[in-house]
Amino acid sequence: MIYVDNAATTRMSQTALDAMLPFLTEGYGNPSSLHSVGQAAAEALQKARETVAACLNCAPREIIFTSGGSEADNQAIISAAAIGARKGKKHIVSTAFEHHAVLHTLQKLQKQGFEIELLPVGSAGTVTAEQVKKAIRDDTCLVTVMFANNEIGSILPVAEIGAVCREKGVLFHTDAVQAVGHLPIDVQAQNVDLLSLSAHKFHGPKGVGALFVKNGVPITPLIEGGAQERGKRAGTENVPAIVGMAAALKEAVEALAENAKKMTALRDQLIDGLARIPHSALNGDAVNRLPGNVNFCFEGIEGESLLLLLDAKGICASSGSACTSGSLDPSHVLLAIGRPHEVAHGSLRLSLCEANTQEDVDYILTEVPKIVERLRDLSPVWHDLTNGKRAFIL
Amino acid sequence: MIYVDNAATTRMSQTALDAMLPFLTEGYGNPSSLHSVGQAAAEALQKARETVAACLNCAPREIIFTSGGSEADNQAIISAAAIGARKGKKHIVSTAFEHHAVLHTLQKLQKQGFEIELLPVGSAGTVTAEQVKKAIRDDTCLVTVMFANNEIGSILPVAEIGAVCREKGVLFHTDAVQAVGHLPIDVQAQNVDLLSLSAHKFHGPKGVGALFVKNGVPITPLIEGGAQERGKRAGTENVPAIVGMAAALKEAVEALAENAKKMTALRDQLIDGLARIPHSALNGDAVNRLPGNVNFCFEGIEGESLLLLLDAKGICASSGSACTSGSLDPSHVLLAIGRPHEVAHGSLRLSLCEANTQEDVDYILTEVPKIVERLRDLSPVWHDLTNGKRAFIL
Repeated sequence: MIYVDNAATTRMSQTALDAMLPFLTEGYGNPSSLHSVGQAAAEALQKARETVAACLNCAPREIIFTSGGSEADNQAIISAAAIGARKGKKHIVSTAFEHHAVLHTLQKLQKQGFEIELLPVGSAGTVTAEQVKKAIRDDTCLVTVMFANNEIGSILPVAEIGAVCREKGVLFHTDAVQAVGHLPIDVQAQNVDLLSLSAHKFHGPKGVGALFVKNGVPITPLIEGGAQERGKRAGTENVPAIVGMAAALKEAVEALAENAKKMTALRDQLIDGLARIPHSALNGDAVNRLPGNVNFCFEGIEGESLLLLLDAKGICASSGSACTSGSLDPSHVLLAIGRPHEVAHGSLRLSLCEANTQEDVDYILTEVPKIVERLRDLSPVWHDLTNGKRAFIL
Repeated sequence: MIYVDNAATTRMSQTALDAMLPFLTEGYGNPSSLHSVGQAAAEALQKARETVAACLNCAPREIIFTSGGSEADNQAIISAAAIGARKGKKHIVSTAFEHHAVLHTLQKLQKQGFEIELLPVGSAGTVTAEQVKKAIRDDTCLVTVMFANNEIGSILPVAEIGAVCREKGVLFHTDAVQAVGHLPIDVQAQNVDLLSLSAHKFHGPKGVGALFVKNGVPITPLIEGGAQERGKRAGTENVPAIVGMAAALKEAVEALAENAKKMTALRDQLIDGLARIPHSALNGDAVNRLPGNVNFCFEGIEGESLLLLLDAKGICASSGSACTSGSLDPSHVLLAIGRPHEVAHGSLRLSLCEANTQEDVDYILTEVPKIVERLRDLSPVWHDLTNGKRAFIL
């Protein structure tokens, strides 16, 4: 079985599992308890906080543990909006191809009277700091721009956008769920005020993430209750998962350059190979993309059928975001970069991790062209295209 | 080491851990993914949903998985308030001794213009259905009353309160975090519309819980984003934890009567024994309480010192809620049942599980009186009391 859906979720590393297990068994204390079992858990929590902070280049007290990337995104954006509303500032700048955890939160705020401006991302799938600068107004309370796109892998100029926001005195949040553990992160150098991350995207456990909150930003809780996380996130801390996340993040950051080099080489072979399929097109920029991300459109086929046939051949891939796979709508990301509906439906995302091999790539490059051809043979749309009843787009 | 802080958190059962482990290793798929690795996770998720639903006597589609009890409480209350607001109904009835996940959410709503009515709970720590009935007005949108109190263990007449709410057409939420797995739950027979639970209170994993939402109640997401949980709770599902929770709940429900019988016998020995300490008083009702809950006030001592000395003797206990242990304020629960500040500070909660033994009880009953005596010897307050400079309350 070849798993190339690492942008959806990753297999937990042995390091992360080994770190978790003691806290799934005898180390079961509640960190809020004063007794020794509780205090052992509290110490583990603190160490995990220090590890995560070191990986982002921030202070431990700037880390809030959450149940994942979506919760972190929601909390960051809703908090920033509340800060803005108190100052009469209700304009938010974002991009058209953010994750739904960002876009749907922004839609909720729009219903509450906020004005949401989504910057176009162009065919390469990015925005410039200049675009952000032009969009910022006197009443802008937040800029939220993702670090790297989850579908097409494009990497956004976060440090430059952050510099613009800092210059303008506007809070800057970045959804770094696809970036953390895969790209160098330094919240200070990158001028970030709020950053969301999710452990299961870098071989950590599911159900845990974190929100970096720059010291001094008056974040508000999304989940009210006990005094955990300095009153910013209620609920008994998920100690095993937090410890596992810290171990996975440390491991990923230490091997980052080496893993990126390996994945980039495999990625580029996949891109070169799949580009040879007629009427195919790479989505996103060929160079400015996550080391593990490959995303293609193939004209005349349905992505879902492609995935099912690939699965039958032992290849686990995706058509785009796993979070929207239940939907019949085409990917909002592919529409945002200008793919028309009829092409956006025929997408394939292959997302690698460092465990993927040359053999995996060779096998994928043998199977995908055959399956695309088979699907096209079955496709009335394809026959319309080849008979000249419709025009090829790609 | 004797662990009698099971209301704070429990040790995960071997059954729960065994259920989780496959999903922490090779079963790592994202349930939203179409390929076989994802679909295996989706099947496990569905089975877990069926198991949890069966334990509550509801339909699987009435279960929303959350990151824990606090999130479930927040979502239930905020959703019910939103439903009420749409109808111009902004009055909420609750009790004075709810968990902070409920009380702090209600305070947030109060700032948004909701009127919050907290019913007094009396010295026994309960409210009657009659009290609730009298409090309900034409503009009441929600009654939220806990199933059992987390500090003093009193069990509330949920079925009767639910019947009143149903008769009046008002939504009824119960925070059942301390009850699920310990008391018989039947959301239909108990007339519940919304019920919160947390896995780590019944030997399941931390970081996971559930919200029962009666079919037809238009719940809104607290966390926006992907289409997980039928669009009611975004974020990649925490499959290992959900599977572990289902296994733990099934195990707890199957052994419920037997465990309750055992724990009640041990509990009553502890209550009888500790009541012999002079100037002590049981908090809550002697009979109407959770099988594992013992909570006493000892006049003239500080609960924190008691806990630390007990810990030195290998007894892990609590003064009340772990969620507020960082606070210097006395327990709002003990104040609500009428304990004055100076007595509320000297509380001890022992919360048993079925793994506790007769030997544990014997040891606790040997150590607690000695430590209370020792602390009183050191206490200026105690000397004031015994010298007649102050009056005993207990």
